[in-house]
Amino acid sequence: MAHVFGGLANLRSLLRRRTAPGAMPGTLTGDPTTTTTSIRVMAYGPERLVEQEVDDPSELTALMAEWPVVWVDVDGLGDVAKLRGLGEVLRIHPLALEDATSCHQRSKIERYADHDFIVVRMINLGDRIVTEQLNVFLSQGLVVTLQGERPGDSLDPVRARLRTARGRIRELGADYLAYSLVDAVIDGYFPVLGELGERLEKLEEEVVTALRQDAPSRIHSAKHDLMTVRRSLWPLREAMGALWRDESPHIAPGTRVYLRDCYDHTAQLMDIVESYREVTGSLMEIHLSSVSNRMNEVMRMLTVIGTLFIPLTFITGLYGMNFDPALSRWNMPELRWQYGYPFALALMVVTSGAFLVYFRRRGWL
Amino acid sequence: MAHVFGGLANLRSLLRRRTAPGAMPGTLTGDPTTTTTSIRVMAYGPERLVEQEVDDPSELTALMAEWPVVWVDVDGLGDVAKLRGLGEVLRIHPLALEDATSCHQRSKIERYADHDFIVVRMINLGDRIVTEQLNVFLSQGLVVTLQGERPGDSLDPVRARLRTARGRIRELGADYLAYSLVDAVIDGYFPVLGELGERLEKLEEEVVTALRQDAPSRIHSAKHDLMTVRRSLWPLREAMGALWRDESPHIAPGTRVYLRDCYDHTAQLMDIVESYREVTGSLMEIHLSSVSNRMNEVMRMLTVIGTLFIPLTFITGLYGMNFDPALSRWNMPELRWQYGYPFALALMVVTSGAFLVYFRRRGWL
Amino acid sequence: MAHVFGGLANLRSLLRRRTAPGAMPGTLTGDPTTTTTSIRVMAYGPERLVEQEVDDPSELTALMAEWPVVWVDVDGLGDVAKLRGLGEVLRIHPLALEDATSCHQRSKIERYADHDFIVVRMINLGDRIVTEQLNVFLSQGLVVTLQGERPGDSLDPVRARLRTARGRIRELGADYLAYSLVDAVIDGYFPVLGELGERLEKLEEEVVTALRQDAPSRIHSAKHDLMTVRRSLWPLREAMGALWRDESPHIAPGTRVYLRDCYDHTAQLMDIVESYREVTGSLMEIHLSSVSNRMNEVMRMLTVIGTLFIPLTFITGLYGMNFDPALSRWNMPELRWQYGYPFALALMVVTSGAFLVYFRRRGWL
Amino acid sequence: MAHVFGGLANLRSLLRRRTAPGAMPGTLTGDPTTTTTSIRVMAYGPERLVEQEVDDPSELTALMAEWPVVWVDVDGLGDVAKLRGLGEVLRIHPLALEDATSCHQRSKIERYADHDFIVVRMINLGDRIVTEQLNVFLSQGLVVTLQGERPGDSLDPVRARLRTARGRIRELGADYLAYSLVDAVIDGYFPVLGELGERLEKLEEEVVTALRQDAPSRIHSAKHDLMTVRRSLWPLREAMGALWRDESPHIAPGTRVYLRDCYDHTAQLMDIVESYREVTGSLMEIHLSSVSNRMNEVMRMLTVIGTLFIPLTFITGLYGMNFDPALSRWNMPELRWQYGYPFALALMVVTSGAFLVYFRRRGWL
Amino acid sequence: MAHVFGGLANLRSLLRRRTAPGAMPGTLTGDPTTTTTSIRVMAYGPERLVEQEVDDPSELTALMAEWPVVWVDVDGLGDVAKLRGLGEVLRIHPLALEDATSCHQRSKIERYADHDFIVVRMINLGDRIVTEQLNVFLSQGLVVTLQGERPGDSLDPVRARLRTARGRIRELGADYLAYSLVDAVIDGYFPVLGELGERLEKLEEEVVTALRQDAPSRIHSAKHDLMTVRRSLWPLREAMGALWRDESPHIAPGTRVYLRDCYDHTAQLMDIVESYREVTGSLMEIHLSSVSNRMNEVMRMLTVIGTLFIPLTFITGLYGMNFDPALSRWNMPELRWQYGYPFALALMVVTSGAFLVYFRRRGWL
Repeated sequence: MAHVFGGLANLRSLLRRRTAPGAMPGTLTGDPTTTTTSIRVMAYGPERLVEQEVDDPSELTALMAEWPVVWVDVDGLGDVAKLRGLGEVLRIHPLALEDATSCHQRSKIERYADHDFIVVRMINLGDRIVTEQLNVFLSQGLVVTLQGERPGDSLDPVRARLRTARGRIRELGADYLAYSLVDAVIDGYFPVLGELGERLEKLEEEVVTALRQDAPSRIHSAKHDLMTVRRSLWPLREAMGALWRDESPHIAPGTRVYLRDCYDHTAQLMDIVESYREVTGSLMEIHLSSVSNRMNEVMRMLTVIGTLFIPLTFITGLYGMNFDPALSRWNMPELRWQYGYPFALALMVVTSGAFLVYFRRRGWL
Repeated sequence: MAHVFGGLANLRSLLRRRTAPGAMPGTLTGDPTTTTTSIRVMAYGPERLVEQEVDDPSELTALMAEWPVVWVDVDGLGDVAKLRGLGEVLRIHPLALEDATSCHQRSKIERYADHDFIVVRMINLGDRIVTEQLNVFLSQGLVVTLQGERPGDSLDPVRARLRTARGRIRELGADYLAYSLVDAVIDGYFPVLGELGERLEKLEEEVVTALRQDAPSRIHSAKHDLMTVRRSLWPLREAMGALWRDESPHIAPGTRVYLRDCYDHTAQLMDIVESYREVTGSLMEIHLSSVSNRMNEVMRMLTVIGTLFIPLTFITGLYGMNFDPALSRWNMPELRWQYGYPFALALMVVTSGAFLVYFRRRGWL
Repeated sequence: MAHVFGGLANLRSLLRRRTAPGAMPGTLTGDPTTTTTSIRVMAYGPERLVEQEVDDPSELTALMAEWPVVWVDVDGLGDVAKLRGLGEVLRIHPLALEDATSCHQRSKIERYADHDFIVVRMINLGDRIVTEQLNVFLSQGLVVTLQGERPGDSLDPVRARLRTARGRIRELGADYLAYSLVDAVIDGYFPVLGELGERLEKLEEEVVTALRQDAPSRIHSAKHDLMTVRRSLWPLREAMGALWRDESPHIAPGTRVYLRDCYDHTAQLMDIVESYREVTGSLMEIHLSSVSNRMNEVMRMLTVIGTLFIPLTFITGLYGMNFDPALSRWNMPELRWQYGYPFALALMVVTSGAFLVYFRRRGWL
Repeated sequence: MAHVFGGLANLRSLLRRRTAPGAMPGTLTGDPTTTTTSIRVMAYGPERLVEQEVDDPSELTALMAEWPVVWVDVDGLGDVAKLRGLGEVLRIHPLALEDATSCHQRSKIERYADHDFIVVRMINLGDRIVTEQLNVFLSQGLVVTLQGERPGDSLDPVRARLRTARGRIRELGADYLAYSLVDAVIDGYFPVLGELGERLEKLEEEVVTALRQDAPSRIHSAKHDLMTVRRSLWPLREAMGALWRDESPHIAPGTRVYLRDCYDHTAQLMDIVESYREVTGSLMEIHLSSVSNRMNEVMRMLTVIGTLFIPLTFITGLYGMNFDPALSRWNMPELRWQYGYPFALALMVVTSGAFLVYFRRRGWL
Repeated sequence: MAHVFGGLANLRSLLRRRTAPGAMPGTLTGDPTTTTTSIRVMAYGPERLVEQEVDDPSELTALMAEWPVVWVDVDGLGDVAKLRGLGEVLRIHPLALEDATSCHQRSKIERYADHDFIVVRMINLGDRIVTEQLNVFLSQGLVVTLQGERPGDSLDPVRARLRTARGRIRELGADYLAYSLVDAVIDGYFPVLGELGERLEKLEEEVVTALRQDAPSRIHSAKHDLMTVRRSLWPLREAMGALWRDESPHIAPGTRVYLRDCYDHTAQLMDIVESYREVTGSLMEIHLSSVSNRMNEVMRMLTVIGTLFIPLTFITGLYGMNFDPALSRWNMPELRWQYGYPFALALMVVTSGAFLVYFRRRGWL
């Protein structure tokens, strides 16, 4: 059951990763688990697209002057100097950069003077639900994404669409690219919820058919996973709502209808999560009710059996008394009857039968 | 009890039906379970009405030019090419069309540049509550409805009213037609809730009179149904509120009073659902209280019976001891009394009687 | 206990009374349980007042032209034709008229072009709480009230004040009359709540002093009654808030201060209902705690008694063994002691005493 | 336990005190428990202050013309005629006057054309929490306070400050006086909550150390008291928020900062009440958990004792059987062994010991 | 367990520290536990910084005229006269000063004419969570901080940054200093929550592996701590939101982006607290479920053992009866069989075996 609170350990480790209390705002801590920061650039217009690895952030200036849209895709938070250089070249606000590198931000959208700063959390379902922070900076003709914690992300379909020029993505601006990235992240929640749903169904099967003792902790574990998703989705929905509703100079009016769609998807996801939570709550109630039913049944049956034998034992005790029938004709004359023993046995059978009938009438059996 | 979570399986299957994560927005998936898409058109003015089957969406342009109001009634989401053609001819926004064909949208109202897009979920009560998506596109003089999942819908009364020209429906515009369709869908909730109410009454009867062991799972099942209706009604009410309150160029001011009426009906429905939920909660409490009462009664009675016999068995044991009265006059002289055995029996009766009186005084019997 | 869900049956019957799904808006169903619709008119100015029965709605036009304020008081929804005529003469919107005749509306206030439409639910406490719909239409110089379900209403004090010209009611306009009517309905809630409170007090008395087995269902029944009142009050308060706050051409600014007072009363009523609900919840908790306490006490005492006898029975069994003291001096020499039997009895007394002391020390007795 | 629902009886009695349903608005009922209404006046400017008893309300006109601020302090609601006269002379709106004399108003602030009407409920902690209504009318240069139910109030400190001219109270206007009065009432909540807190601490002590059977009802009683305070504070906070935020012609901008302070205090009070409620909830949980723990322990120990004796009794029964060892060497040869009896005793000790070890290993002991 | 309600005693003591009810607003009580009030000043511009101890508040005027930013850092609330002098020299509103010295304010932000008044509560984790009030007054070029209860605060990192001129803190104005102070306080919550999380993990370990009887009270204690943090964070977040969103003449637009960051941190903290609360709730449920499981298992096993012996004891009783086989061949002929005793033993073994098999089949064992 130790895994129930993986989430707890996770939260605590994030608390440790923070900059020291009272540190200067804008301090970059970077990620101590890695030392590299790779910068890949995709620059494109409707007709052409180049992809290249960039080592010195200052090379970006030329690219930004040449291409309509430039996507700077930063992976790994190990090289603090490079990150700081990047922030200066691309005019990212120090506070935003600090948030982007601290890995434990909630999903949010913040408007800075020179750019919009969007944080969304990508979801991953391994043994437990894990979320990873994706930072998106959006300004005129420029999208910067920054991610760190683990290799792999949900953005490959967007890269593929850019390369193959499927749809109108290459014709539209940086705002549409940012939307596509956020949308890909949100789409990543759907299969995770599908998988969670399958696990819930399996759990349900077990709760209903077998009285497994680890059911409560497994149900709690499922509940905890759902809470993690919910806590991740809630600010995501809020952020998407703000992104769609609040005007931004960096987002064309035509793109906002797509952002509304994103918002809509988060609302659907919340709906599904709420359904799952409700089902999980029902599972616990049904489990407890089954446990209590079974306990009641066992105790009742055992007590009934015990009670049935009590008068029998009394009768055997009766005729085990040492009153001497030879001394007085009042002293247990049955002992001297020819059919005394069968009479005693019959007495027992009749008594038990009477009890049985009585119990069954009262519905206790 | 497996049917408790039909809803769960249902939700999960919807998750599978989605377009792949990261897919281009506006991608149409269609419905893999069918291959056809039929387009029926009702075009009418105050005086006349024509109904015809349309095969090529481009035929619609002529109809729309000729008639004051055109209702394009699309059934089945199997023919993706036809759907795409339809979207182009009728200038439906690709995002709206994608939503309309994905079958798992919540009720909502979205304003696009060229049209309003209304999603409402129709309700059906078979073995379980099932909801089906109805998409309504409304622009000047044009209403497009799109539905897919199952045959049959709640719109036949509207078709009949159009044909017989009952009321003023033919004199009023496309907005009134859209209202009539949405109103018909909302009206479809009332008989379903009536039926649910009857089931609840029957369930109540059983819970109160018989202690059936499947009561908890049946109550949970009813609860689940109510939650499904509630989850369907909640966004419906919100959408109706937005439809009524927010100005739209496609809706005449005179029609808005009808939309307020729709909103009012959804509020009434929510009221009924809340009452049912409250009753269902009471049922569970009463069931649990009955179960516990019965268990308590059984255990108490059994224990009382057991306790009554305990002193009797003790007395029999007493006189079953092998102290020899012949050896000493202190050794159970009762054994040698003439009326020793009746005395022992009387002792037992008196003891039991005393216990009975004591138990009854304390109210344990 | 069948009466617990009288409310349920009630709700369901309302669902049956509705117009068919998809019916034309503005369809009047009337009330199938009656065939009559009586129209009484009170027309008045500061100086004079006439009361008359009106049979043909068209007679009202003359009265409205002549008198400053006309109150058309319609009772019974049986005569659909008369109701439709009334609607036309008094220019009541068809949707409002449909709502007014369908008897299951929540309290609300709706502004139509020609009039305000106010629905309030009157309360009645028979065996169960019952609410009845009162419809009030307010336009310049005209108040129409429409009610149906049962004879008798809460409006008689207003009629009396009009006849005797007490207060300034005859000097003020139709809006003040409408206020007086709504106020009378709201005032009708106070004695009902008083009566409910008395029942709760009686119930409390019983729950605390006697452990009656029907307590849970009676508490649930009280809870249900309170929920009915609450569900009736909630929209009433909302409607009163809207009536007071939103400007209406039919309500003079001087009257709005009175409507605020109405709103205030509904808030007070909600307060009382919430207090009652809280008390009812406490009653259930106290009942359950008493039941469990009593059960615990009984079981503990019975088990203690049983346990006290167990060593006694053991001792009797011991000396009932058939080891022959004559064969060996190790074989239960007590049997041959002169005071063997008294010794055994003493042993029993000492053992029981030790147990008693131990139990009491541990606080089990 | 009857005192649990003192609050209930209280509420109900208030319901009885109301004017009859449908009564004319503005009807004064007065207080049937008293017959007097005393009017004390404090009129003051920065330099001087007069205090006098006024018998005829019309005397007030002269005082108001002469002094910058006049505080009319009315005590007792018995003399309806005097109250009505007061209302006319001071131009108090009839509805406000009706509310002021009906004693069961929630805290509120209402703006009338000629004055602001503030209702606050003073708190008193006797055996139970009791609240009393204080009505404050504020217009230019005039403050009227009206209270009825009991002698004594929380306003004496303000009177003292006026007399001694401590602080700037005499230099500031009527609005500052009204603020001071309301502030004194709110300050009166703090010691009451302090006392409640002490009671809670005592209760906690008892719940934790002793298993008193009246704990649930005492906890409920405390909960009830807290609910009473909460129900009183909630509208008070709302009213203070409205008083501070909404502009009023009778309140100088400089005074509003003081009213914000009042609002702040109510928020603090709510905070404390919420903490107490949380603690009370914990107490109940801890009590129930203790009760169940103790019950479990008792039953387990008793059952263990019983179970330990069961095999002993069986062995005694075994050697109490009447098989005759003389007839066959298979018939209980132990009976004829020299050390048969010690052997049997040893058998018992070993069996019991084995059971004890087993129970302890399983952790049942 | 007495420490569960340390918080309660704490709250109550705060209630005692208040000024008397009805006291003049602006009354300073000071802190009776100390007699000193020390004033340290840090005055700085981009180039230079002086630090000095100030004894007479009037010395501050000269400093304020000379330096761009002056930070007046007041420690200890014992010297009421000095505090009053400070308030006059620095033009602090009397109400704000009263709040600042009363030590039990909730976090808040209040705008006064001459300054902003910010209250934040610093957190400290000793044995229990304790919060301490930090008052910040912000006006043009001046920041006053006032704290009292305990030595030590969270502000040292800011002092260090000022002295070493790290970052741009010395170049920016008083508003940035105020932000840095508040930010340092908020940062102080993170390690406390980290520590709380570690305690929760340890508690979890214990709840899951051992059934400790003090688990409920320890879980409640953790819950209580979390509630304390939550009650402290909630108004803090609100205050930060107001600080960031509402325009103030004392806060430059460029500083507001930093305040948004502060707000963001409080939201993150709330998130963590909510996760912890959820985990704590799960712990209680798991504990209760374990306790009940274990109790059920023990009782079931004991009852099964008891039940297994019941028929055995019956059989021994049977053959302990005194029917004389010599008198009749119907009287227990087994007693005279050669293998009668082995037969009886076998009978017992078979009966017990049958019961065992039956119990195991029914799944009771």
